[in-house]
Amino acid sequence: MAGIVEFEKHPADTLKVGKGFSLAKADPDATPGYSGNKADGEALLADLDGKLTALQEMLFAESRFGGRKRILLVLQAMDTAGKGGIVNHVMATMDPQGVQFKAFKAPTEEEKSYDFLWRIEKAVPAAGMVGIFDRSHYEDVLIHKVHNWVTPEELKRRYRAINEFERRQTDAGTTVIKVMLNISKDEQKARLLARLDDPAKHWKYSGGDLKERAFWQDYMDAYQAAFDETSKDHAPWYVVPANKKWYARIAVQQLVLAALSDLRLEWPKAEFDVPIERELVERS
Amino acid sequence: MAGIVEFEKHPADTLKVGKGFSLAKADPDATPGYSGNKADGEALLADLDGKLTALQEMLFAESRFGGRKRILLVLQAMDTAGKGGIVNHVMATMDPQGVQFKAFKAPTEEEKSYDFLWRIEKAVPAAGMVGIFDRSHYEDVLIHKVHNWVTPEELKRRYRAINEFERRQTDAGTTVIKVMLNISKDEQKARLLARLDDPAKHWKYSGGDLKERAFWQDYMDAYQAAFDETSKDHAPWYVVPANKKWYARIAVQQLVLAALSDLRLEWPKAEFDVPIERELVERS
Repeated sequence: MAGIVEFEKHPADTLKVGKGFSLAKADPDATPGYSGNKADGEALLADLDGKLTALQEMLFAESRFGGRKRILLVLQAMDTAGKGGIVNHVMATMDPQGVQFKAFKAPTEEEKSYDFLWRIEKAVPAAGMVGIFDRSHYEDVLIHKVHNWVTPEELKRRYRAINEFERRQTDAGTTVIKVMLNISKDEQKARLLARLDDPAKHWKYSGGDLKERAFWQDYMDAYQAAFDETSKDHAPWYVVPANKKWYARIAVQQLVLAALSDLRLEWPKAEFDVPIERELVERS
Repeated sequence: MAGIVEFEKHPADTLKVGKGFSLAKADPDATPGYSGNKADGEALLADLDGKLTALQEMLFAESRFGGRKRILLVLQAMDTAGKGGIVNHVMATMDPQGVQFKAFKAPTEEEKSYDFLWRIEKAVPAAGMVGIFDRSHYEDVLIHKVHNWVTPEELKRRYRAINEFERRQTDAGTTVIKVMLNISKDEQKARLLARLDDPAKHWKYSGGDLKERAFWQDYMDAYQAAFDETSKDHAPWYVVPANKKWYARIAVQQLVLAALSDLRLEWPKAEFDVPIERELVERS
């Protein structure tokens, strides 16, 4: 087996949305911090699977003994950008016992009758869990802004509410990782056409995708505004170039790995006397 | 790559609990219907991963267009029998979007204040989903019977309630697969000792395991009674020999694959005119 090509610069540094970040200048084709090709990326992804699942198991184990740490990965993107692929190819290797996956669709009538964070609160990860949001509370400042479903004042209120909500999560032990998968408008066209060319993918195609595509620039503006308002040190945004699916996957894997490593997890110490228990088992 | 060794007789036939089944006569070391070895089994498992995920995606896709089919896999076993391994190595390859995993622990005070099926009903899979129960409503006729927490009358009521409950699920489009992973008492001892020998596994060890182990034969009797009362054509039990973990995994994979195949799934037909949509995307 050939050597594994690692990142030269960590995505946690290169992809983080800081002061002055401009989405317009972010290149969806780029592979920041990584000089390998597709095959290298796929090998790296597979190579780190085991590490990811081991860390996740440790996170889960800690919580059985009172640990309060947890992870929340928020995935946002334009249609076809590859959220599903991230979930399937990066996160699905983890133990389902320790993963809380939640896809947020258009809100139900009941959900609409509450504040926008009501349904989000119900889906946050419990201690020890890795939560994954496929879309999230950010829809309420993205599609809602694009279509002017909210006043500027309400939009402002939502940004503030989101910041307070996320601050509360991190204060309670949650590491929040917010990822925007950044594809180009041309790449989306190619992927929509590919869906139409494959009968096994027709079910994923909806006329609604085209309708939102017509608002591409408005969405980019809404993302930029969301980054400006809500990328905070305690809950930063990462804009991940996603025209190359393999790159987006290894980049997100690195972000989750870094978050888990930063937690300095340890296997819980035995609260029993091992030799005595051994003896009891032997005799049983 | 060497050729794949397939099953000669399908586990859906060889492992099904029918009239006159005797758990006492079931060999936990056996590999019914399969002549391959561990390496063959692992290769078979990996080889069928793709088929399993494709069928599961089709099940999910159907439900987006009104399909009502779904799967419920119930896993029951003595401690250390390998439920977690089944979830991680067989089921975790599926798209988390289409999987509902639920581990039933000791009931909370709130859950205890309802009928035993109350918390179960809340966790049944939605249309298009593959549900996995790690333990289940069967705890209420297993541990409860073993420790005489219920009268014989109440036990009878529970069997009947379970049968009616499961019948309702299958009538609503659910394929119910009930699996008991069958390990021997000696094998459990070996696995408990292995846990004690590995600090990374201490968190999985609990003195409670030993306590229940002391009631081994009572548990076997309770399982036998549950099989006698609740293995029905519409919701059969399968007793899967589990001393060899690799065998248990390929056997359960076969059971789930067979259930999915029996549903005769198809990709939903496009409800739009493909050439027209292509043209619209091209121009967008």
